[in-house]
Amino acid sequence: MAHAVSPLAPKSIPNAPGLEGVRIATASAGIKYKGRTDLMVMVFDEPAAVAGVFTTSRCPSAPVDFCRANLVHGRARVLVVNSGNANAFTGKKGRESTAATAKAAAEAAGCEESEVFLASTGVIGEPLDVSRFSHLLGDLAKEAIPGRWREAAEAIMTTDTYPKLVTRQAEIGGTTVTVNGIAKGAGMIAPDMATMLSFLATDAPISAPVLQSLLREAVEPSFNSVTVDSDTSTSDTLLLFATGRAKGRGCPEITDAADERLGGFREALKGLLLDLARQVARDGEGARKEIVVTVEGALSDAAAKRIALSIANSPLVKTAVAGEDANWGRVVMAVGKAGEEADRDRLAIHFGDVRVAFEGERDPHYSEAAASAVMKREEIPIRVELGLGSGRWTVYTCDLTKEYVAINGDYRS
Amino acid sequence: MAHAVSPLAPKSIPNAPGLEGVRIATASAGIKYKGRTDLMVMVFDEPAAVAGVFTTSRCPSAPVDFCRANLVHGRARVLVVNSGNANAFTGKKGRESTAATAKAAAEAAGCEESEVFLASTGVIGEPLDVSRFSHLLGDLAKEAIPGRWREAAEAIMTTDTYPKLVTRQAEIGGTTVTVNGIAKGAGMIAPDMATMLSFLATDAPISAPVLQSLLREAVEPSFNSVTVDSDTSTSDTLLLFATGRAKGRGCPEITDAADERLGGFREALKGLLLDLARQVARDGEGARKEIVVTVEGALSDAAAKRIALSIANSPLVKTAVAGEDANWGRVVMAVGKAGEEADRDRLAIHFGDVRVAFEGERDPHYSEAAASAVMKREEIPIRVELGLGSGRWTVYTCDLTKEYVAINGDYRS
Repeated sequence: MAHAVSPLAPKSIPNAPGLEGVRIATASAGIKYKGRTDLMVMVFDEPAAVAGVFTTSRCPSAPVDFCRANLVHGRARVLVVNSGNANAFTGKKGRESTAATAKAAAEAAGCEESEVFLASTGVIGEPLDVSRFSHLLGDLAKEAIPGRWREAAEAIMTTDTYPKLVTRQAEIGGTTVTVNGIAKGAGMIAPDMATMLSFLATDAPISAPVLQSLLREAVEPSFNSVTVDSDTSTSDTLLLFATGRAKGRGCPEITDAADERLGGFREALKGLLLDLARQVARDGEGARKEIVVTVEGALSDAAAKRIALSIANSPLVKTAVAGEDANWGRVVMAVGKAGEEADRDRLAIHFGDVRVAFEGERDPHYSEAAASAVMKREEIPIRVELGLGSGRWTVYTCDLTKEYVAINGDYRS
Repeated sequence: MAHAVSPLAPKSIPNAPGLEGVRIATASAGIKYKGRTDLMVMVFDEPAAVAGVFTTSRCPSAPVDFCRANLVHGRARVLVVNSGNANAFTGKKGRESTAATAKAAAEAAGCEESEVFLASTGVIGEPLDVSRFSHLLGDLAKEAIPGRWREAAEAIMTTDTYPKLVTRQAEIGGTTVTVNGIAKGAGMIAPDMATMLSFLATDAPISAPVLQSLLREAVEPSFNSVTVDSDTSTSDTLLLFATGRAKGRGCPEITDAADERLGGFREALKGLLLDLARQVARDGEGARKEIVVTVEGALSDAAAKRIALSIANSPLVKTAVAGEDANWGRVVMAVGKAGEEADRDRLAIHFGDVRVAFEGERDPHYSEAAASAVMKREEIPIRVELGLGSGRWTVYTCDLTKEYVAINGDYRS
């Protein structure tokens, strides 16, 4: 079920530099796919600090439950990720699978099971057969070397059409630190669902509680502001590891989230997560256009975000963009249904730089030709001014095409 | 932009009997469409009691604002509905249009403007040119006769593929009364949005406050439990008129919502609204299958409804049904994202009579062949048992097909 690479893919996929204290290996374990890698092991030779955020689903996968439990210790020595099977909705067998994987991974890395982190993506409802890959973990942990970030990004893909990999640098107290991140987005293998996984590592010496605080802050305007189809996976997992090895190059240890020396790192982390999150939207199933929805002038940022998500999740808005139609009427509809304060007669709507609606009616100076030119772009900015307050938010999504329906509906027919 | 009649349309469209005190006329005013009716006038020779419910949109259309204001008086003499232009997001011009229509309608019916009710559906953002039809209202009010319900249902259609018309009878204190209803559903004319309009009338002598109470109660499990694409129109309007003429045949006047003699009427009204609402779902854009989602065992009916709507609005569930795929994994996902209490390991999911998942995993006795047979039906029942309480709700929707994307995205390309 190969799909053409998204027209919104980056022109070239970068590699990321090796990170001190992080070694990576991948393998083709044949969990479901043939002829590609589907297993990724990331080893931290000294315990790394770890932070994580997970799906809000009330029916999370077994690996999500497992990671949440281990996260309280804040220490990681090994991460094992498989694609091809999500180990979700697998009941007691799911817990047995995570326990068996954790045992094998702890032996492979020579660590405690509480220092193991796991993620799975792929088919759901199928028990995950750990015997397919548990025997590989020992050798992989030995073979793992720094710098294999691109291979890691490829091994965790499901029906992503390109690997997602970003690197950023920042200074902490005069020392350069690096943060690398990979992600996988909306993919589908019957009977499956979209799942977002993302793994980041840095050599910065930042304590687990500070890392958690930074991650929570950075995830709001990035991964928590991206939507493909409003459907929330049972498996969404974002983990950030910090090896602290930059300490050897004079980097100060950071143990307070309010430490001013974190400024550059905080921005780098936000930039990296936003880049990854937008890549996920741009590789949404069937996507041909990225839609960037900005709501301004709301009563609060939270209200702006809810209205922006209402627009970004509207099938009518998304199909209009697919049809290159500057259909501001549907934007009004989506504003109206969001349930937040809005005044029809103060609304202004822009597609790109073209103001199509103003003070509750069609802008009298609106040029159909200019709006059509905007709609032909790959990136469609939609901006709504509510004129009520100073709340503002931006959300990223993609258009809704027949290809989305084909990917998600046709494979049995 | 004609579309083939939905395969889920009724095999034959009934007419409804004439109602004492209700006269109907339709006309081709050429507001937007050619060669079809687009104007409907319903006249009540003596003031009818009236009840109404409207869109929850914060950006409602001008006619919705107008009806809300008049509803407080609870008396109706004339209803004017046009298709082809929604008079929504038309700012000050919108209010001028409703005022001008109300003036012309009041003159035509010889009543107060406070006794006029209006609805519009079609293009939004275009000023409604009242001069296209205001001069017709006088003659229409004169020509109007009872029994033209089917013509009324046809005149209010936009891209509905069939007229929606239901009639029911009930007894109140030994006298037979009738209630007729028409509706239009998800239609689309660029640049437009789905709009749901429905108008009901009865000869029962029921006071306006009682009528309002009955309507609020009956709308919850029907129109408020149907969704095509989760998008809420700016124009949704449901009005119920009671002429009271059955009083002449001995029917008692009802002025108390707790009156036990209302039992039969209450059930008839519920049945009629549910029938109309399901017809709207079955004529959803591109629909090939109706999906009936029932959630049982929730902590409350409200929780069951939210979970059922989460399933019914999920693009991944709807595309799976389009592909005739009994994809219970996506149902689990939609349960999980609804935000209501759910216990993954107690979930059971049925497609029709086939239990596909039980106690948080695939049902070991699940037959793929039996499930596939269910998915080939026109009506797909999905039932989720949460095992937590006694809350229960049913929601009606349709599948998401490429045709939906084509209707809503392709018309400009």
